[in-house]
Amino acid sequence: MAGQALDDLIRQLARLPGLGPRSARRAALHLLKQRETLLVRLAASLTNAANEVRRCSVCGNLDSADPCWVCGDAERDRTLVCIVEEVDDLWAVERAGLYKGGYHVLGGTLSAINGTGPEDLGVERLLERIRADAVAEVILATSATVDGQITAHYLADRLASAGALLTRLAHGLPVGGELNYLDDGTLGAALKARRPIDESSAGKS
Amino acid sequence: MAGQALDDLIRQLARLPGLGPRSARRAALHLLKQRETLLVRLAASLTNAANEVRRCSVCGNLDSADPCWVCGDAERDRTLVCIVEEVDDLWAVERAGLYKGGYHVLGGTLSAINGTGPEDLGVERLLERIRADAVAEVILATSATVDGQITAHYLADRLASAGALLTRLAHGLPVGGELNYLDDGTLGAALKARRPIDESSAGKS
Repeated sequence: MAGQALDDLIRQLARLPGLGPRSARRAALHLLKQRETLLVRLAASLTNAANEVRRCSVCGNLDSADPCWVCGDAERDRTLVCIVEEVDDLWAVERAGLYKGGYHVLGGTLSAINGTGPEDLGVERLLERIRADAVAEVILATSATVDGQITAHYLADRLASAGALLTRLAHGLPVGGELNYLDDGTLGAALKARRPIDESSAGKS
Repeated sequence: MAGQALDDLIRQLARLPGLGPRSARRAALHLLKQRETLLVRLAASLTNAANEVRRCSVCGNLDSADPCWVCGDAERDRTLVCIVEEVDDLWAVERAGLYKGGYHVLGGTLSAINGTGPEDLGVERLLERIRADAVAEVILATSATVDGQITAHYLADRLASAGALLTRLAHGLPVGGELNYLDDGTLGAALKARRPIDESSAGKS
């Protein structure tokens, strides 16, 4: 309805999560009204991100640098690894402000529906890293969803003989909830009260 | 927190109306997960829009073409002009599907706060067009807000001697409401029942 270039822009904006057709139209006009300060800068940021941002070869985090800003930080405890599902879960843990170890970003959970299998979780890379860095503790911080817990059980099995202590976040995160939506205080408390995975709760079935 | 290129992308996305910091983070990850199909295409759409989309020199609509898709449409009645505040109001009228004339997009309302004065509304251009195209009717379709109605009164004064019949949308749009948020049915009914502006309601004060 609004000319091809503008229609195309609205269609692309409407594909962003959180923007419907109406807010996409509003966003497009807002951008065009402030062409230099908003539109051109957003386009540049996107192109820049497309060219520069990649997965960290160590932990799977997203950054322009490889190793990423976490893995490259000498202040971080390399003998402590926190396994999270996604990069926004890593951000959530960082916002809690308590954790000073490294991460392993799975990039998803085991899921028959999404076609994510064990080989997509980077377990071999993680095992190699546990050996090389003499990792003392691995925290399983997957979400308390069904897929998240199945993935945690699978990882507990795979990592059981690696020599690192396996822990999980303390109860405190709501059952069925996603890590990314937890408030910072609760997440911090759950981190502090993390406890070893024992044979009965890890489910060696 | 997430490396400069990614932080910058999140900051730019958060400036879109309708996206807060959390949904901007979510949108950034969503885009990076589908780099070729979403991220690169959105960047291209934005660059394309920045380079191509401009105001129509006739009516002020936004389009890659000048004159725009409305002004360039030979099927449209050039003797009928609908004055709207913004391009999304034009889209709203088009969605109602009843109107087959041209437009004059003000680009805003008279507003001391926003610094929009009479010279910003393109009245001279409109007067010239009324003369050149022998426009028979001008519909004042500004919003039923205070600014919208002040602007309509001002325009009614300025256009009174131009020789075209001045009409306004029928009552039916809620007082205090904005044109862009009106449902299509009500907007269509209001268009059909438009009526001449008489001296008493036009406010020749």
